Amino acid sequence: MNRQILLAARPVGFPKETDFRLQEAPIPEPGEGEFLVGVRWLSVDPYMRGRMNAERSYAPSVNLGDVMVGGAAGRVLKSRQAGFSEGDYVMGMFGWQEYAVTDGKGVRKLDPAVAPVSTSLGVLGMPGLTAYFGLLTVGEAKAGETVVVSGAAGAVGSYVGQIAKIHGCRVVGIAGSDDKVKWLKDDLGFDAVLNYKTTTDYRGALKELCPQGIDVYFENVGGPISDAAFLLLNPRARVPVCGQVALYSAGKEEMGPRLLMQILVKQVKVEGFLVFQFASRYGEGLTKLTEWVRSGQLKYKETVTDGIENAPQAFLSMLRGGNTGKQLVRISNA
Amino acid sequence: MNRQILLAARPVGFPKETDFRLQEAPIPEPGEGEFLVGVRWLSVDPYMRGRMNAERSYAPSVNLGDVMVGGAAGRVLKSRQAGFSEGDYVMGMFGWQEYAVTDGKGVRKLDPAVAPVSTSLGVLGMPGLTAYFGLLTVGEAKAGETVVVSGAAGAVGSYVGQIAKIHGCRVVGIAGSDDKVKWLKDDLGFDAVLNYKTTTDYRGALKELCPQGIDVYFENVGGPISDAAFLLLNPRARVPVCGQVALYSAGKEEMGPRLLMQILVKQVKVEGFLVFQFASRYGEGLTKLTEWVRSGQLKYKETVTDGIENAPQAFLSMLRGGNTGKQLVRISNA
Repeated sequence: MNRQILLAARPVGFPKETDFRLQEAPIPEPGEGEFLVGVRWLSVDPYMRGRMNAERSYAPSVNLGDVMVGGAAGRVLKSRQAGFSEGDYVMGMFGWQEYAVTDGKGVRKLDPAVAPVSTSLGVLGMPGLTAYFGLLTVGEAKAGETVVVSGAAGAVGSYVGQIAKIHGCRVVGIAGSDDKVKWLKDDLGFDAVLNYKTTTDYRGALKELCPQGIDVYFENVGGPISDAAFLLLNPRARVPVCGQVALYSAGKEEMGPRLLMQILVKQVKVEGFLVFQFASRYGEGLTKLTEWVRSGQLKYKETVTDGIENAPQAFLSMLRGGNTGKQLVRISNA
Repeated sequence: MNRQILLAARPVGFPKETDFRLQEAPIPEPGEGEFLVGVRWLSVDPYMRGRMNAERSYAPSVNLGDVMVGGAAGRVLKSRQAGFSEGDYVMGMFGWQEYAVTDGKGVRKLDPAVAPVSTSLGVLGMPGLTAYFGLLTVGEAKAGETVVVSGAAGAVGSYVGQIAKIHGCRVVGIAGSDDKVKWLKDDLGFDAVLNYKTTTDYRGALKELCPQGIDVYFENVGGPISDAAFLLLNPRARVPVCGQVALYSAGKEEMGPRLLMQILVKQVKVEGFLVFQFASRYGEGLTKLTEWVRSGQLKYKETVTDGIENAPQAFLSMLRGGNTGKQLVRISNA
């Protein structure tokens, strides 16, 4: 049987496990020009929260009763598509299920000799590319600058900080536990990390860690932490807006201090972006990221939850910051 | 005598006439390498509000007791500087006074045969260049797009709208009186103009005037009008932030709806800018602006107040939107 996780209800505020439903369906048969994938790794990512709403965010929402959307990696089990053979390792948008049939559009073949296939969902996948283009192209980070990244111990955040270090920046992370702080500093080489859960004076604490102000604020969270970072921006600073995880489950009209005056007075560039904007440059990005991973300059950590039935719990835990590095769900059907 | 307007007090909230003081001083004598200018036109601009505060905004503040800072145009009365002769028309940062001595740094010579010298403070000066670079370089306006400009009947706003029309955009203005609306539509060719003083539903009213959404929101005002515009931004829209005149006299912590989620979901670029960033391209800008003024494609209006003693009142009136087009003070000493 093919176990799938469906969207059962539109969450009000923070989502809960009952917003999802496990369903058993027959394992599908590939038609002409299609192939069957046995999924081994499922990715859960912050953007999925937006897909659960009725309103379109930057991508269409998931319909009630449909399989939850998401990237996954696995192996071809049966193929009627010339480009893919049984045994090939692949990643694609296979959704929250154990088996998927696809025509291969948007599917990427993986070489497990280069890196573990799970990295195709993390450091050598969308999160890695998001960090790469967000920091370097949108954020225009340059050697000697101070880069602050929120959600620093998450997948994207942990790559952003390391890529900034590779480029000669001073890197300050913001994370939510002492263990995360220790990992970012001791293992990943961040210059300083703020544990936002043990301070209430975000601005004062950040100011101490950024004596030269902030040149790039890589924004993953939103809310009061980002308000504090805005107050410390240097003239001509850049703010790539990658996520607003603190606000994904908030009501419609979250109020906060007005930021446009800061943006004007400091001539700041604030830019929301999606990795898909850089599709024509994925090759360049993956080449660089792979180089850095293989040389040991870019490290990654995975937080693994076992069993498709636990995907909702893994997703909710990730939204609460329970993960360190990339949150994955491992499926043992193959 | 040289009548000057000094900064007498730091305003709390909206400035008042008593924050300024008129002083009579002897007409200064130019030293070796300097020349004396008799000022004919003084510019009052929104940015000056920031210079009245103790805290540096994007430029140092004016010291208490100092002559107010500002651009002005006039004629050389006496010269001991080889590059400038008696009778030359010039513009520079001469301040709020009837006579100024300068070494010529940053002073531009004017040809009254090309355009009236007062235009060097408006359409063929900083406001014109601000509109040109803000709309085309920061805003990346393209033919067929919808451009919305707030403060539309002010100097910068009225140029922005016309430059956008020249480039084939649909242009919607936001202004504060029926006379301004009529002028922008009938004389300047705006496609639509919203009188924000006769509606409270900014979003609904703007939505009706922008059936295709907003691609460029040229931001001069801040506050609830800009909140409404943000809600109508199209994917990949640009927001050049030129001013926040509604907030210049507000307390420190103005609250409003959080905008970063809109910026993320629509992949919007919001960028604060100063015209000085484009100093190396002023020649290009002035050439284009002059061409359009002379061909009649770019019209300008001046609101003129007579007498240096009335400069504070002209400035306050401009901050309240009392002007149409460029607010100037005319000085009759020459």
